[in-house]
Amino acid sequence: MTQQLKPHQRDLPIGIDATGTRTETDSLGAVDVPADRYWGAQTQRSLEHFDIGDDRMPKAVYHAYGYVKKAAAVVNSRAGRLPEWKAQLIARVADEVIAGALDSEFPLYVWQTGSGTQSNMNVNEVIANRAIQLAGGRLGSKAPVHPNDDVNMGQSSNDTFPTAMHIAAVAAIDEQLVPALTRLHDAIAGKSREWADVVKIGRTHLEDATPLTVGQEWSGYAAQLRDATDHLTATRAGLYRLAMGGTAVGTGLNAPPGFGEDAARAIASLTGWPFVTAPNKFAAQGSLDTLVRTSAALRGVAVALFKFANDLRWLGSGPRTGLHELDLPANEPGSSIMPGKVNPTQAEAMLMVCVQVIGSDTAVAVAGSEGNFELNAFRPIVISNVLHSVRILADMSDHLRRFLVEGVKLHEDQLRENVDRSVMMVTALSPVIGYDKASEIAHLAVDHGLTLKDAALQRGVTEDLFDRVVVPADLTRPGTADLAAGR
Amino acid sequence: MTQQLKPHQRDLPIGIDATGTRTETDSLGAVDVPADRYWGAQTQRSLEHFDIGDDRMPKAVYHAYGYVKKAAAVVNSRAGRLPEWKAQLIARVADEVIAGALDSEFPLYVWQTGSGTQSNMNVNEVIANRAIQLAGGRLGSKAPVHPNDDVNMGQSSNDTFPTAMHIAAVAAIDEQLVPALTRLHDAIAGKSREWADVVKIGRTHLEDATPLTVGQEWSGYAAQLRDATDHLTATRAGLYRLAMGGTAVGTGLNAPPGFGEDAARAIASLTGWPFVTAPNKFAAQGSLDTLVRTSAALRGVAVALFKFANDLRWLGSGPRTGLHELDLPANEPGSSIMPGKVNPTQAEAMLMVCVQVIGSDTAVAVAGSEGNFELNAFRPIVISNVLHSVRILADMSDHLRRFLVEGVKLHEDQLRENVDRSVMMVTALSPVIGYDKASEIAHLAVDHGLTLKDAALQRGVTEDLFDRVVVPADLTRPGTADLAAGR
Amino acid sequence: MTQQLKPHQRDLPIGIDATGTRTETDSLGAVDVPADRYWGAQTQRSLEHFDIGDDRMPKAVYHAYGYVKKAAAVVNSRAGRLPEWKAQLIARVADEVIAGALDSEFPLYVWQTGSGTQSNMNVNEVIANRAIQLAGGRLGSKAPVHPNDDVNMGQSSNDTFPTAMHIAAVAAIDEQLVPALTRLHDAIAGKSREWADVVKIGRTHLEDATPLTVGQEWSGYAAQLRDATDHLTATRAGLYRLAMGGTAVGTGLNAPPGFGEDAARAIASLTGWPFVTAPNKFAAQGSLDTLVRTSAALRGVAVALFKFANDLRWLGSGPRTGLHELDLPANEPGSSIMPGKVNPTQAEAMLMVCVQVIGSDTAVAVAGSEGNFELNAFRPIVISNVLHSVRILADMSDHLRRFLVEGVKLHEDQLRENVDRSVMMVTALSPVIGYDKASEIAHLAVDHGLTLKDAALQRGVTEDLFDRVVVPADLTRPGTADLAAGR
Amino acid sequence: MTQQLKPHQRDLPIGIDATGTRTETDSLGAVDVPADRYWGAQTQRSLEHFDIGDDRMPKAVYHAYGYVKKAAAVVNSRAGRLPEWKAQLIARVADEVIAGALDSEFPLYVWQTGSGTQSNMNVNEVIANRAIQLAGGRLGSKAPVHPNDDVNMGQSSNDTFPTAMHIAAVAAIDEQLVPALTRLHDAIAGKSREWADVVKIGRTHLEDATPLTVGQEWSGYAAQLRDATDHLTATRAGLYRLAMGGTAVGTGLNAPPGFGEDAARAIASLTGWPFVTAPNKFAAQGSLDTLVRTSAALRGVAVALFKFANDLRWLGSGPRTGLHELDLPANEPGSSIMPGKVNPTQAEAMLMVCVQVIGSDTAVAVAGSEGNFELNAFRPIVISNVLHSVRILADMSDHLRRFLVEGVKLHEDQLRENVDRSVMMVTALSPVIGYDKASEIAHLAVDHGLTLKDAALQRGVTEDLFDRVVVPADLTRPGTADLAAGR
Repeated sequence: MTQQLKPHQRDLPIGIDATGTRTETDSLGAVDVPADRYWGAQTQRSLEHFDIGDDRMPKAVYHAYGYVKKAAAVVNSRAGRLPEWKAQLIARVADEVIAGALDSEFPLYVWQTGSGTQSNMNVNEVIANRAIQLAGGRLGSKAPVHPNDDVNMGQSSNDTFPTAMHIAAVAAIDEQLVPALTRLHDAIAGKSREWADVVKIGRTHLEDATPLTVGQEWSGYAAQLRDATDHLTATRAGLYRLAMGGTAVGTGLNAPPGFGEDAARAIASLTGWPFVTAPNKFAAQGSLDTLVRTSAALRGVAVALFKFANDLRWLGSGPRTGLHELDLPANEPGSSIMPGKVNPTQAEAMLMVCVQVIGSDTAVAVAGSEGNFELNAFRPIVISNVLHSVRILADMSDHLRRFLVEGVKLHEDQLRENVDRSVMMVTALSPVIGYDKASEIAHLAVDHGLTLKDAALQRGVTEDLFDRVVVPADLTRPGTADLAAGR
Repeated sequence: MTQQLKPHQRDLPIGIDATGTRTETDSLGAVDVPADRYWGAQTQRSLEHFDIGDDRMPKAVYHAYGYVKKAAAVVNSRAGRLPEWKAQLIARVADEVIAGALDSEFPLYVWQTGSGTQSNMNVNEVIANRAIQLAGGRLGSKAPVHPNDDVNMGQSSNDTFPTAMHIAAVAAIDEQLVPALTRLHDAIAGKSREWADVVKIGRTHLEDATPLTVGQEWSGYAAQLRDATDHLTATRAGLYRLAMGGTAVGTGLNAPPGFGEDAARAIASLTGWPFVTAPNKFAAQGSLDTLVRTSAALRGVAVALFKFANDLRWLGSGPRTGLHELDLPANEPGSSIMPGKVNPTQAEAMLMVCVQVIGSDTAVAVAGSEGNFELNAFRPIVISNVLHSVRILADMSDHLRRFLVEGVKLHEDQLRENVDRSVMMVTALSPVIGYDKASEIAHLAVDHGLTLKDAALQRGVTEDLFDRVVVPADLTRPGTADLAAGR
Repeated sequence: MTQQLKPHQRDLPIGIDATGTRTETDSLGAVDVPADRYWGAQTQRSLEHFDIGDDRMPKAVYHAYGYVKKAAAVVNSRAGRLPEWKAQLIARVADEVIAGALDSEFPLYVWQTGSGTQSNMNVNEVIANRAIQLAGGRLGSKAPVHPNDDVNMGQSSNDTFPTAMHIAAVAAIDEQLVPALTRLHDAIAGKSREWADVVKIGRTHLEDATPLTVGQEWSGYAAQLRDATDHLTATRAGLYRLAMGGTAVGTGLNAPPGFGEDAARAIASLTGWPFVTAPNKFAAQGSLDTLVRTSAALRGVAVALFKFANDLRWLGSGPRTGLHELDLPANEPGSSIMPGKVNPTQAEAMLMVCVQVIGSDTAVAVAGSEGNFELNAFRPIVISNVLHSVRILADMSDHLRRFLVEGVKLHEDQLRENVDRSVMMVTALSPVIGYDKASEIAHLAVDHGLTLKDAALQRGVTEDLFDRVVVPADLTRPGTADLAAGR
Repeated sequence: MTQQLKPHQRDLPIGIDATGTRTETDSLGAVDVPADRYWGAQTQRSLEHFDIGDDRMPKAVYHAYGYVKKAAAVVNSRAGRLPEWKAQLIARVADEVIAGALDSEFPLYVWQTGSGTQSNMNVNEVIANRAIQLAGGRLGSKAPVHPNDDVNMGQSSNDTFPTAMHIAAVAAIDEQLVPALTRLHDAIAGKSREWADVVKIGRTHLEDATPLTVGQEWSGYAAQLRDATDHLTATRAGLYRLAMGGTAVGTGLNAPPGFGEDAARAIASLTGWPFVTAPNKFAAQGSLDTLVRTSAALRGVAVALFKFANDLRWLGSGPRTGLHELDLPANEPGSSIMPGKVNPTQAEAMLMVCVQVIGSDTAVAVAGSEGNFELNAFRPIVISNVLHSVRILADMSDHLRRFLVEGVKLHEDQLRENVDRSVMMVTALSPVIGYDKASEIAHLAVDHGLTLKDAALQRGVTEDLFDRVVVPADLTRPGTADLAAGR
């Protein structure tokens, strides 16, 4: 290849002042593309062959690709493989990609080639043409910046697309989901502390059980959410390992020695996350196991949130014929026909979000198992589902917090009435009078509609014993119970 | 309620010439809405409480709701419950909804109340305000057309949302998916006929087996697709049953006698599909079983298409180290690093689409099991997944057909070479010389790299017998095999 | 092959009086098998190579295979391919297989070859050796009855295993599941009739809604179950189509003309179900689509039963702090620590069974998509999951009926109290006074703890109007509601 | 309760010398149990109410329960709540339970109460009666050892069943699965080293790609398996946290202060695993999140193994019309009709096992989301699926290793031929001559059936350049590729 002279760089805003079409070429020949677009022949071919449904490759993948291309340019330049001016030009455009300024240039669909090659080429083409524009070249000429030879130098879709997937997943988890989960956790933990001493009757099998405090109950929600979040963040360790440097099949053909290490270091430096090169590129490119694990952790969050949201709607059920321990905020009228109805709509939306995440995770696991030889070619479906799950879990967690958790109130009359009517506090008598006799008392109370005390006295328990042992608040802190509010 | 006089109707185009906000009210009070929008207070509340992710309630649900509202208006008017002029006004706007002319007025998200009430109210509010506009009234005044009392008359979200779901699902299946599947089937059946006499070596367990024709193989794809399509269309019988008439809990409170029957008849007449009223409204509203079955049938289509697309990519693998029986069309360069590479991209996209449908179906089944008492409140997630699966299966089937099936060619050299080298045709000798001796011959051939014939002769089979029995083409039509090309 | 003379047949009971081992052979050589077993070399090899977990191929598959082998023998004999005496011998042993008398001779595991070949060979070997025993031959000699040449004549595992799968599935569904579901349906429908006039407050979104009768509610359960059962039985149409006649790859090589048709006819005649030959053997052997559809229908049953069981446990929750509309039978003490506790254990077991069926169905769908070319080699996992789901759904349905549904009682005090306290009957006033005013009344009642009537009067509704409109029982039959008890 | 004197203990073997039935009682009354069984009334009731299918609660759960009961007895005795002789008696019988000596006394089914209470009572009853026997008491008398007051002292099913689940899961993973996975990993890593220098043509999208060594390819399998195993073992951290001490609802009612800590310490000491008390009992009992995560990790193992097994069967396909890079061991004849056929049966069994694990995991996730309030009552389904997945993955991994991996051989002729014919090595020229020209060469070669070299020379590449750059072995180690065999 001929050596190119450093062109004069101009400072042009994004945008192409042209109408109609422009001819771009690739190895299969010439293609007309819209003249006001930066993309080239391969993007255009993909648009025409893959306009399937409405599902577009998430923009976050392209932002992540911006880091990939910038890092590659920097490393290639340092190694003397790419002229410095060219690397700077590519890096400058990559910054525009990272910032989202070129988002509208990335129109491709999720349902495309399973390697994500078309999205990689979309990035290569857009960066090349934008760089050409800045360098005063002719769009589509591939000079002075070539989409493959320069922007894609030392890279393959097979190593860069998984790299971009990992970067995008880490960013979404760290910037969107974990903060939202933490905020929700803190709100729940706050309620747990607020209600630390409010006694209620517990339920197991949906049936009346022994008492606990509302704060204890909510400490459980907080702990579940904390553990699920911790497990999710632990899967980042796998995501930090980048495939870059493996190129086509994992051997690193056409990448110089140390390219993977250097590129990972550059990406770490650009993003602030501790990315490293994957220790085994054949696994990193032939499988999607890391993201399957991350997806499972997202499902774990959904499983925990499902339980919480489900409890919320049941505890808020009523107002007259339900459990009605909680007063949920009335955010909107609940019914088009039943006036005055208020429904647990935020909880319902959360339940649906969680079910969607569970379904998506099934798709991810199946896709993850379908690698063949040197490539798992089910990449776009995996990243689109993972990012979607992150997004809806994050948004939903914030909404549930703002529009339900923060405004929820206890219906203390109901809680007190439940405590007063409960029979299962007979359990406290059991160590004293034996399980069998305690059972008799409970059955007597239920079958004859008696209070527990009346039934106990009828069966020979002394009033003194009863009053000493059956003290609801005491039963919630028998010494071993640890509130661990908020964890 | 006071009787309203028939207003003068104007013929105004869609659109509100106003800026800023307008005050709308509902039972919880006043809300500011954008002045240039038709929607009212409840839509606005939903927008603010449920802007979760990017998933919007599919427009097809609103188009279907147009039929619901028009049918209700017509039936209410006939029954003398709604003034005729009001019914006509509502019907007119409903026609605009059906035509998609008001699509931008339906901005709500999938993740909302589980009954779809907010989308129903969105429709009620938009129709009411547009009707008010046409009648010269004041937007937000609920006069002369009230979103609940008039547009929602005799209805609840609990019966109309499932009704709209069924209508939307039938329309999407019949208008999008079945035609696309039929076109794909016909293309496959055409290939089956075209290649009816081309002999190839079959594979079972991926291992060489006895011969069949390419046409026979493709007849299997065609038959699978036809059966899956038939099963899908059979689930329409359940979808034709509409919940309308059940109102809030299935009893039909506030709907006049016969309302469900009349409304279903009106919808049938308006749409051309044989909708009827559901025989049991408690089941129709308390469950989503019918759509769970439809989703399963969509999954059935995906399972059949997965096998087809998977076979295609394997049969097209190569060109030098794969099976390479098929030459797949080269629609785009396959690699950013490997020049000249062509990949089975349409097949890969189809495989991903199928996996997505399988995952979505899991979500639908879980959602379908979660009904409680008189309502299954997981409706939005179900309809959004079903319509999404229909859409991507339909689009993908057309793309696979156009960009792969119609252009695929046989690599006849490879097919012939495979036939020549095959050992498993020894099976034809088995009935004559016995399984045990035939086994010996096969092992001899494989272990020593002999042709089948050489091995057979070495083991005492006469050349005459061999040449008479081992005729590849004959082995593909032993009398019982029926090609059933195209079914 | 040499012609064999008809041997003298003895009437020996099942059993081999021998100890130690016997040498059997197959195309890979000699194998020692237990001398007191009928099976041969290939069964023994499978036992040694595949003793994985505890999951055995269901016996029902072997019983079904008995029909396959008997039908093949009969048809082969009629066609003059198999001596009549040999066919009779095979048929006689096949009858023993069908009757389960040889069950202990079929020890193989689910996790074996994906075609089920090892189970087919197990059947071939056992029938051959048992026939040899009856004919006075030497076990393992393959004379006068050869496992491949005679018992497997005109057959392959690739067509007979799917055939046996279909027969086994039809039998299990028709003999176990459908009767159990029908019994459960009838019990539910009986309750629906019994409680046709008992008014209760409905619940949507778990929140108080308008009234219905308990009978109406239960009619919904009955209708759901009936529809799910109907859908399941409809999938039999696909199961009736048998692959037999396709042999190795669908062409029918080594089977005489008409073999598939004749064999299906014979199986139909032997079993009483209307089996026919599959119209396209390539689809029948290359896919498992039919059983994927059946599995989906089983999941549909599970989805309906999940809702029913879930409602049961919630309606039975309490006794003091739950909904407590139902008194569930106390079948056992509910707690090891809480004396007197009674739990909805049958409902819980049903919920778990349903979840298992949903999970199994996911496995079936994935397995079903994994066919390649002329064979889907995921057969054992599919039939074992389908038969397992049938079994646990059938048993569980009977148990839920006997131990919960038949003994459940209404807690009428609670139902009445709920009706008295309900606010949502304000809906009935809505058509008279308008939705907005009705909303006001409802909010007033809830916020201030008033009865609906008090709130209505405070807002200007006359007592006369209120008493005329708000009559709970009337609200459950507004004319359009149809009970459709039992459907 | 009256104080009991220390009875004389006898040294009786396990077994009850009695026939007919014995009367046992619980709080619901008297029940006849088989006289030769140790279990009591509640076990018998469960047997009669829950004989559903064939799925029994895994014995491993009871063995784990042995530790629970022994630990509780020890701690209760130390605290002076249980006489030392009684604790010793219970501990002695618990040791018999742990050793499996009483396995036949634990007949209950998976489909039972969702808390596992019936299995807990089964353990309590069996230990009590066996202890009574040893103490010379009357079976069924509950004296001197009472199933609830003594054996279950300080415990509830709600905290001990999850505790037993965790112990059983840790044991199964550590003793069965991890060793099997490690052995398989080591076998794979050994092959990776053995074949470190054998060059082959890589495949991406199933299409020919650039070369790598067979050792590199297998290093990827090893790395995937190692990572999946590591992730699985990491989930033990959650499993080490035991719910014990929470008793009925998490508060620890009826357990003395420190009971949970002491019991966990005792169990750790007895088992050797670092069990600790769960920091939040409300989460530990209200959810199953920890086991959902473990199940997901099992699925992760399945996803990795699916890819490996799938590659194996494809690489072994042929012998004449497949890829045939590997010669798989011929463990058994492959076909009942096609003589001499050898199939990848171990790989197929593994694929099915993996699919089963994926399906089971879906069931576990759904069950895990279904907790309500103070209890997740979907426990038996979760532990039975988790232990089943562990078991079949462990057994299958050993079988795949022994019967496939250890015996697999390279078909080096095929590998060499593939290298010779490959076109994609043109990639190595790309950095020198540019992507566009390299593409031209590749297309020329494929379209005209040329070797890569011939095509390159025709397009002006010098022979010297070609021979210097296109050296297959060199292309597999371009400096950056790291074999990382065995990881």
